[in-house]
Amino acid sequence: MAMIIDGKAMAMGIRKEVAEKVADLKKTTGVEPKLMVVLIGEDPASTIYVKNKEKACKETGINAETIRFPAEIKEEEVVAAVKEINRQKETHGILVQLPIPKHISEEKIIEAISPEKDVDGLHPNNLGRLLKGGLPWFVSCTPMGIMEMVLSTGVEIKGKEAVVVGRSNMVGKPTALLLLARHATVTICHSRTTDLKEVCKRADILVGAVGKPELIKGDWIKKGAVVIDVGINRSEKGLVGDVDFKQAKEVAGYISPVPGGVGPMTIAMLLKNTLTSAARSAGYHLE
Amino acid sequence: MAMIIDGKAMAMGIRKEVAEKVADLKKTTGVEPKLMVVLIGEDPASTIYVKNKEKACKETGINAETIRFPAEIKEEEVVAAVKEINRQKETHGILVQLPIPKHISEEKIIEAISPEKDVDGLHPNNLGRLLKGGLPWFVSCTPMGIMEMVLSTGVEIKGKEAVVVGRSNMVGKPTALLLLARHATVTICHSRTTDLKEVCKRADILVGAVGKPELIKGDWIKKGAVVIDVGINRSEKGLVGDVDFKQAKEVAGYISPVPGGVGPMTIAMLLKNTLTSAARSAGYHLE
Repeated sequence: MAMIIDGKAMAMGIRKEVAEKVADLKKTTGVEPKLMVVLIGEDPASTIYVKNKEKACKETGINAETIRFPAEIKEEEVVAAVKEINRQKETHGILVQLPIPKHISEEKIIEAISPEKDVDGLHPNNLGRLLKGGLPWFVSCTPMGIMEMVLSTGVEIKGKEAVVVGRSNMVGKPTALLLLARHATVTICHSRTTDLKEVCKRADILVGAVGKPELIKGDWIKKGAVVIDVGINRSEKGLVGDVDFKQAKEVAGYISPVPGGVGPMTIAMLLKNTLTSAARSAGYHLE
Repeated sequence: MAMIIDGKAMAMGIRKEVAEKVADLKKTTGVEPKLMVVLIGEDPASTIYVKNKEKACKETGINAETIRFPAEIKEEEVVAAVKEINRQKETHGILVQLPIPKHISEEKIIEAISPEKDVDGLHPNNLGRLLKGGLPWFVSCTPMGIMEMVLSTGVEIKGKEAVVVGRSNMVGKPTALLLLARHATVTICHSRTTDLKEVCKRADILVGAVGKPELIKGDWIKKGAVVIDVGINRSEKGLVGDVDFKQAKEVAGYISPVPGGVGPMTIAMLLKNTLTSAARSAGYHLE
């Protein structure tokens, strides 16, 4: 039986730590970390995500504000608004809630964000620095959370086979690079992979980030593997991950559940990135 | 017996094509493509590489100039020089010959180059765009050359297992991303990979870019695989690649030799990138 990687509990611990540091930052420098969220349109899921982020910020002492635009807003108006936020000294993090309406180029909006305030780590400059193994201003929150979870198991990453299922810019590719930087042998697979089961079975560390309910079965998993499930899929059974949890937990060494796994860690990492940004701007040393 | 992927012949064809387009660009727009190479110190290998690049430019009608600095030059002076070249309207490509002396930060110099003139594709902005699967201004020359060579075989990439041995920023990682963009299942391995032979044996497309003479043996190769050898190593036998060519050619379906493989293709891609940059600045449409 696998050990459960309790993302919720880990996230709570991180949030407590962030809250303490935020309080100290305010006390010693007078700087209050501030996150500005840009929300375009009224997609119900996005609205909930944004509300959760705002709530988490507030509970940690981070000031959060959401700037809302109607779905029909013009691209250049959003770009102008983002550039205006870049200039606001009191704002340390900018996050554009994705997805955005089709008539607006996601690329253009993301590239308008100053890399130094890009707490979501999606600006090409940050992704490029990540690729180079240098120091990006920020690493995307979900991959950061995944790495914390893998590290929490104590399993050595160096020399291990890591398999990332899914090649998104927000999760799959950055996670692969982080695992590579920790010296794993990394395979990225996706919808065109010919024999996904066989590839998954090689993995000492398996990350499911493909958005297909319970795609990864128990017999796709190597005995003792660390399994991180990034999927959040609505199904008849309620929320399920990309991994068939019931089967997988019989085989894996460690497994993260859905819900209560990667999700809470992603928000915790957003808080951490926002704190980091504020601390940098205040010259405050975070140990 | 493997088919030989003749990089030298391919490169000659590309250079001929570039030369024709350069001539037409000059005739129709008056713009002469210009590459500026920055060379720091007097490393003999670097000096030869730079001379070869200059020669190749000249033969293609591209104006090439090398700005030389003594090895003791200060970092900020190089940064200032690069920024000055960024401003020169008549220069379309800037290339800093690597490696550079240890007291100068490679990162700082590369980041000083305007991404729009970064014909070597090493600026984080270009690498980040490559990672995102968007359109970088430029893709590094060696990975571009490797992809041309793989494509020349006519072997379908989609769904195939590609293995890249080596994880450098100039070759390994960008090549992995280009193969991924073509829908291969991609594994990146390196010096910490536990069982390199086994990983290599999975590869339908195998790229050796690790800089170890004849590391990859015949029995590491899957029958019929496409093998691209990026290594250029000096040995007792003369120049050899990362692949044991004599053994490998008995097993592989296609193989690139050393010399006469990736090397000439890299220079051809540099010429192509410089032409592309000049054409962009002149509003000239390259078909």
